[in-house]
Amino acid sequence: MARLVLKFGGTSVADIARIRNVARHVKREVDAGHEVAVVVSAMSGKTNELVGWCRDASALHDAREYDAVVASGEQVTAGLLAITLQDMGINARSWQGWQIPIRTDTAHGAARIQEIEGSDLIRRFADGQVAVIAGFQGLAPDNRIATLGRGGSDTSAVAIAAAIKADRCDIYTDVDGVYTTDPRVEPKARRMNRISFEEMLEMASLGAKVLQVRSVELAMVHKVRTFVRSSFEDPDAPGMGDFDNPPGTLICDEDDIVEQQVVTGIAYAKDEAQISLRRVEDQPGVAAAIFGPLADAGVNVDMIVQSISEDGTRTDMTFTVPASDLGKATALLDKAKGQMRYDAIQSEAGLTKVSVIGIGMRSHTGVAATAFKALAQRGINIRAITTSEIKISILIDGEFSELAVRTLHSVYGLDKG
Amino acid sequence: MARLVLKFGGTSVADIARIRNVARHVKREVDAGHEVAVVVSAMSGKTNELVGWCRDASALHDAREYDAVVASGEQVTAGLLAITLQDMGINARSWQGWQIPIRTDTAHGAARIQEIEGSDLIRRFADGQVAVIAGFQGLAPDNRIATLGRGGSDTSAVAIAAAIKADRCDIYTDVDGVYTTDPRVEPKARRMNRISFEEMLEMASLGAKVLQVRSVELAMVHKVRTFVRSSFEDPDAPGMGDFDNPPGTLICDEDDIVEQQVVTGIAYAKDEAQISLRRVEDQPGVAAAIFGPLADAGVNVDMIVQSISEDGTRTDMTFTVPASDLGKATALLDKAKGQMRYDAIQSEAGLTKVSVIGIGMRSHTGVAATAFKALAQRGINIRAITTSEIKISILIDGEFSELAVRTLHSVYGLDKG
Repeated sequence: MARLVLKFGGTSVADIARIRNVARHVKREVDAGHEVAVVVSAMSGKTNELVGWCRDASALHDAREYDAVVASGEQVTAGLLAITLQDMGINARSWQGWQIPIRTDTAHGAARIQEIEGSDLIRRFADGQVAVIAGFQGLAPDNRIATLGRGGSDTSAVAIAAAIKADRCDIYTDVDGVYTTDPRVEPKARRMNRISFEEMLEMASLGAKVLQVRSVELAMVHKVRTFVRSSFEDPDAPGMGDFDNPPGTLICDEDDIVEQQVVTGIAYAKDEAQISLRRVEDQPGVAAAIFGPLADAGVNVDMIVQSISEDGTRTDMTFTVPASDLGKATALLDKAKGQMRYDAIQSEAGLTKVSVIGIGMRSHTGVAATAFKALAQRGINIRAITTSEIKISILIDGEFSELAVRTLHSVYGLDKG
Repeated sequence: MARLVLKFGGTSVADIARIRNVARHVKREVDAGHEVAVVVSAMSGKTNELVGWCRDASALHDAREYDAVVASGEQVTAGLLAITLQDMGINARSWQGWQIPIRTDTAHGAARIQEIEGSDLIRRFADGQVAVIAGFQGLAPDNRIATLGRGGSDTSAVAIAAAIKADRCDIYTDVDGVYTTDPRVEPKARRMNRISFEEMLEMASLGAKVLQVRSVELAMVHKVRTFVRSSFEDPDAPGMGDFDNPPGTLICDEDDIVEQQVVTGIAYAKDEAQISLRRVEDQPGVAAAIFGPLADAGVNVDMIVQSISEDGTRTDMTFTVPASDLGKATALLDKAKGQMRYDAIQSEAGLTKVSVIGIGMRSHTGVAATAFKALAQRGINIRAITTSEIKISILIDGEFSELAVRTLHSVYGLDKG
């Protein structure tokens, strides 16, 4: 007997038929003797509808009211799943964030979980009751509903798993695990059996939208064994109830990964834009003068490359922003040209950032050189490079996105089983 | 300055444009210096959608889960109206039943309000804040949401008005008041300026679906001055902000009605069915033997007529039920024929109950005779009659419904201004 948290996203609970399918997954684990808490998102499309109404009511809406409106989506799904489980003869009840309570900070609309009172849930497990918990929401100190930001139900699930000391947290989604790269780009992409928290963080933040970044951080901190698996497979297919190795990808501590690969995955983010400031005065404080105002305006600056100054007085500064922020960023830089003291501004959209990720890079050399050589052989020009301990990111022209992903996937042997 | 509760039903908040119109009604009262609490229903259609999902999930659904699901409709509207009011520069916040709290009993799905903690609302009025309250819901002793049953938002509004000692409770709906009869049947029907609680109770329970019966009972007990008025009129039209006589119908204590009419209104209920049990044994306990099982089965028995026994041993028992309950009722009676000991059962659907209502009947004689004579002159056969202090109800064939309503409306002079 173990204690499990199962989380189901919006596409998995999109209608009553799918909710019934979710209930069968829950039933399988209950029948196996496990204690089960379920975390649900809103039916797919619901949150967008509710957010749209808030926007229609006022462009600048009160985040506390937004939270009350938007949290209703998960409230509905939790109730419906509890009813469906009861209909299957399972003792179940729904919980809203304020009932448990899941206490958050005051940052309405993007709150962080502070504390979860799990004792009542645990007491009811002993009575054989399944807890069906509305994800994405909690109770702020002002006694009002707070939501955790988009994708927050993943974070709810991991936080609840930590609070009730669950043996496993299963994130059921519309894919059956984490792949070595996007299978739509590279059909030879393989599902990983295991990936470390650190690698998953890089994958998640780079556009492999399987799991919300914060949920991975939380799982890492609390060492929650988290599986990514599919809700669309037959709940009673062979192996689905395998406790140690259910079908899917385990996100775990790197120590739990016996055979470490040097490179485990290739991620990419399209629609990047590059901005270059030419002949910026090369003196202390210049970076702060440029990036401070951009940060204040909410522009998400990513790769930053500062070229070596030729004569010790002037330098070129190049960085990337999401293409959607390009107009705002250049307008801001144009306006502040006087203080920033640069000669010219150049920008280009339609770029892609491709990233090579692997914990093994820490102990292996030559990983970056392999990537550069492989891309060069395909005639792909590299515009910028940034690296971290376990990641190499390369900025290229968008038209080469798929070619670059497939090239890198192949050169590191990821397409071989 | 006064303290007002304004209640808006589902058609009044059906979309963002209508919510904005509601906000203008609120703004008018706020601008006049009043303290305002607003009670809202779910957007029209939403509650039916949510109820449908619960039914699809399970025919026999847990009322506590049903409540969690269905209460979300009002939660959404309350948040959206608060946002809209803020957008107009009005200090407003939403309240859910559990936040105030509005305490109910344990009867999930059809709970009754036990207590409302109004002190926080009143304190915030002093700060100029408008309270936007989700109707139809409260917090049960088990710390879970309880709903008040269909139309419960009217009851919420009146109960809140009583709790915060409001000077007036305005029920905004899609009609502009209470009429002497249904204007779709009799175009000469007139809007009443005032109607007593007792009369309104009879009107409400007889199919004039303007106000929920329980809300009228509550208003009567707590002497809440309640106006029925239209949300679809221009919020800033002349007279809309008149404190003592806003356009609409005031439901009030009968002492507040100076010029009392003998008859104030004609109500009707279609789709009634009649059941006659022939030659029932005329002995003590026979009525209990018949109506006990029907009540247990949830069949709503209305008019009951027992004929005088011819020979002292047998009698005929005739009563009405809603046509939708006829099959269930006759099946039950058939099954229990042995215990009930009657000779035969006859039934007929497609009947209509027409009622003449007026507090003045208490002190005037001949009201019933006038009705019988007028109907007879039109060739309308009377199947059964029941009377109370302020009401005469007459059962007729359904095909005469409209003719009977118009005839009675005219014979008591209700079509004259």
